[in-house]
Amino acid sequence: MDYPEPIAQLIESYMKLPGIGAKTATRLAFYTIDMDGDDVTGFAKSLISAKRDLHFCSICGNITEEDPCAICSDKSRDQSTILVVEEPKDIMSMESMREYHGLYHVLHGVLSPIEGKGPEDINITSLVKRLQEHDEVKEVIVATNATPEGEATAMYLSRLIKPAGIKVTRLAHGLSVGSDIDYADEVTLLKAVEGRTEM
Amino acid sequence: MDYPEPIAQLIESYMKLPGIGAKTATRLAFYTIDMDGDDVTGFAKSLISAKRDLHFCSICGNITEEDPCAICSDKSRDQSTILVVEEPKDIMSMESMREYHGLYHVLHGVLSPIEGKGPEDINITSLVKRLQEHDEVKEVIVATNATPEGEATAMYLSRLIKPAGIKVTRLAHGLSVGSDIDYADEVTLLKAVEGRTEM
Repeated sequence: MDYPEPIAQLIESYMKLPGIGAKTATRLAFYTIDMDGDDVTGFAKSLISAKRDLHFCSICGNITEEDPCAICSDKSRDQSTILVVEEPKDIMSMESMREYHGLYHVLHGVLSPIEGKGPEDINITSLVKRLQEHDEVKEVIVATNATPEGEATAMYLSRLIKPAGIKVTRLAHGLSVGSDIDYADEVTLLKAVEGRTEM
Repeated sequence: MDYPEPIAQLIESYMKLPGIGAKTATRLAFYTIDMDGDDVTGFAKSLISAKRDLHFCSICGNITEEDPCAICSDKSRDQSTILVVEEPKDIMSMESMREYHGLYHVLHGVLSPIEGKGPEDINITSLVKRLQEHDEVKEVIVATNATPEGEATAMYLSRLIKPAGIKVTRLAHGLSVGSDIDYADEVTLLKAVEGRTEM
């Protein structure tokens, strides 16, 4: 005996999500059947709406309903700084800090020779074009992740942008606030020592 | 800056699923936006369909599109045995064994005084009615989980059904096939010794 068709299809759909295997998908599918009807309808609607109503901002690549996005069209923001991130959700992390008031640019990935991802596969051309068209930009802050690919991408961007006379900076590496030196890995510790500041 | 409304709603929907917190929900929502459009539409449709087209079988409580379910309406199955499980998905586990050809009954839960769940909160009344109406049933196999609640439920069912002259059996406890005695807990080991069979 197989599962009834509707639940078999729902299990298959759940399995298309990252990190969800057959066991978890089955558990989620049975849970869905027991859920409130309105919640399920709302879930289905939000799936459709997220796919249909969201686009990438034609300027910065952020996810948005209107084009350009709320940040790009906010003229009160500092137009002289662009912070470069890997993914749209990194923008939310930065915004939650409430201290950065410049613009953003989303790469939608990183350079990765192993995965065959070169400069033309991520959102770099539009960044260069943006810098050429807007000479009020004085600084590009590269906030790619502290992974080998993130570092390589930061290095690539720096070499590409610096010759145009624009300042290129990178987020500081060091100990997490509240963390214990005991638990820091050697590379982080080295970066923390190298980047030490005077008190 | 908050997330655009469609993605905020999708994150909220994902968070209603069990074991999915804010971080995972956000990751899944952003993944959904990058998914193939047809896959997302299919996902939404399967959610609606699973909730709308699936019901509980009026005889055994299994999940089904038609009532009675495929197992209850299959007259070639052994009508003299009913295997009692906690949840519909347990039926699939039993069926995957391909050795049991009798009928099922789904309790949709277990007795749990701590959670205030008594006999009237799970599917017991319909089981008793079924046994009264079908005197061809000779054996009830209780396949509740090997938890305290599962054991208590099995005991309760046994006391309820035995006086009617119906044989009540319980799944064997013991070592998992392929498992190491070293790693078995004491209670399992005790059950394995108690239930030893002659070779």
